[in-house]
Amino acid sequence: MKHFISIDLGGTNVRVAKMDEEGNILAVLKSSSYAKEGREKMISNMKELIQQIPGYEECAGIGIGAPGACDQEKGCLLIDTNVPGLKDYPIVKDFEDTFHMPVRIENDADVAGLGEAIYGIGKEYPSVFYITISTGIGGAFILNKKVVSGRKGFGAEIANLVIDPSREKINYLAKGAVENEASGTAIIRKANQKLNRTVAHAGEVFQLAREGNPIAQEIIDGAIHDIAQMLASISAVIAPHIFILGGGFMKSSDYFMEDLRKYYAELVHEELKDTPIVQASLDEPGLMGAIELVKNL
Amino acid sequence: MKHFISIDLGGTNVRVAKMDEEGNILAVLKSSSYAKEGREKMISNMKELIQQIPGYEECAGIGIGAPGACDQEKGCLLIDTNVPGLKDYPIVKDFEDTFHMPVRIENDADVAGLGEAIYGIGKEYPSVFYITISTGIGGAFILNKKVVSGRKGFGAEIANLVIDPSREKINYLAKGAVENEASGTAIIRKANQKLNRTVAHAGEVFQLAREGNPIAQEIIDGAIHDIAQMLASISAVIAPHIFILGGGFMKSSDYFMEDLRKYYAELVHEELKDTPIVQASLDEPGLMGAIELVKNL
Repeated sequence: MKHFISIDLGGTNVRVAKMDEEGNILAVLKSSSYAKEGREKMISNMKELIQQIPGYEECAGIGIGAPGACDQEKGCLLIDTNVPGLKDYPIVKDFEDTFHMPVRIENDADVAGLGEAIYGIGKEYPSVFYITISTGIGGAFILNKKVVSGRKGFGAEIANLVIDPSREKINYLAKGAVENEASGTAIIRKANQKLNRTVAHAGEVFQLAREGNPIAQEIIDGAIHDIAQMLASISAVIAPHIFILGGGFMKSSDYFMEDLRKYYAELVHEELKDTPIVQASLDEPGLMGAIELVKNL
Repeated sequence: MKHFISIDLGGTNVRVAKMDEEGNILAVLKSSSYAKEGREKMISNMKELIQQIPGYEECAGIGIGAPGACDQEKGCLLIDTNVPGLKDYPIVKDFEDTFHMPVRIENDADVAGLGEAIYGIGKEYPSVFYITISTGIGGAFILNKKVVSGRKGFGAEIANLVIDPSREKINYLAKGAVENEASGTAIIRKANQKLNRTVAHAGEVFQLAREGNPIAQEIIDGAIHDIAQMLASISAVIAPHIFILGGGFMKSSDYFMEDLRKYYAELVHEELKDTPIVQASLDEPGLMGAIELVKNL
């Protein structure tokens, strides 16, 4: 059985794993991604981690999940907000030159979506829309087990999907962009505006809502409405066969999933009301999905 | 060279054509679609038109573009607002039994989108989002020259895409659904509310706007904003490589295309601002696209 290297590169940490072709993790190493120390350190650290994986030389390819839109043809990141210095850097060519095996890079949400679509709860569905809600909001559209990358790699970069243009302007995103209204960051912002206390995590706002705080409940309910509108808009555009939701936000899924499905059903065609909206099923969708980038080359 | 039968079934008229495999029209017949006289008359009329086509027996298949979402597997329409009685009727099986050749049916916007993606202005692009704006608003997402049909055939049924939830409730669609805000029907509704005259066609409102009527200009400008928001939302979901716009609305494209592109650019990621937004290029995208349903069987 062939083996592969999967890399899950984030703004805080990086993990490098050795995988078999069924998606089993054979070895995994983790370290800081050294994102604040610049490109050279980030790259050399990843290479060192690969070289510490037993038998890395015999692997058949390296798949990288990266925190931002990627250009498949140029083999680089197009956005490097979380890993400054990597934008436009030919990381695929660099790693291919170093390790003499095929290397591919893809957006981390796309890679996690692939993992869920092939190994996880989406595996029976012809199309899967995977959404990760945590600090920000990202997505992946997987059609027939392949990522639909879109123009310049921006397919399913749903952070900028407008759910209500009458909201206030927050940053470079459009007014009412879902990431500014329903991400963890958005919930923290709203809580700090409306609650008489300082909140550091969206989880605290969920906790207050569970305890009966009406302002916290209103903030969460608003965000769930906005997420429902996002799902309804996605359905109006491509009507995926299933929505799979991941990310830190889903730690509180027991609190809101029923409402989310109800609000969604109010916004879509009769025939789409029963679209499955489910929680991500895998512990490691990113590591499992990344091998798909190089498995069939 | 193989020949095919294309059928363009509408709520008012039906056209039946004999096509070659390069998309050339060899013969075409047109009649009322008899939509108000029920299923039996609609079906028998289509069959008679086919039988009047010289050499129809030697054709290699029949492709039908129908006015509503279709179920590919069952070979029927799922919505028959414009052709009452055809919902769930196994039209594909009926025609296959009668004519002894493969028959396929697909939504008319999907078929027109296919035509534009294969023979028209979209032919150089990996993905095409085709939108028709006339009485209503419909769409088609064509990826690698294939229609992405979505769950229950509802892919790209964009009429219900919400561009602003603060608008008034009009009908069964969600509040602020783009079809209720920017279709020909929507423009007529708004004009009849705001102008001191009765308007029968959106074209009249465009004419008043050209003549300097400020209320007509405001109505049109609002609709163009809403269409721009629709395109921006589609880009946030799948980032198509090109938007192709068709339908009666485009008769006035010289009046609004520049504004449309400007408003769109204000709503999307920097890298997507230059997404091509162009007018449909073919006279008969529907007849040309319908043969694609049966060409490669």
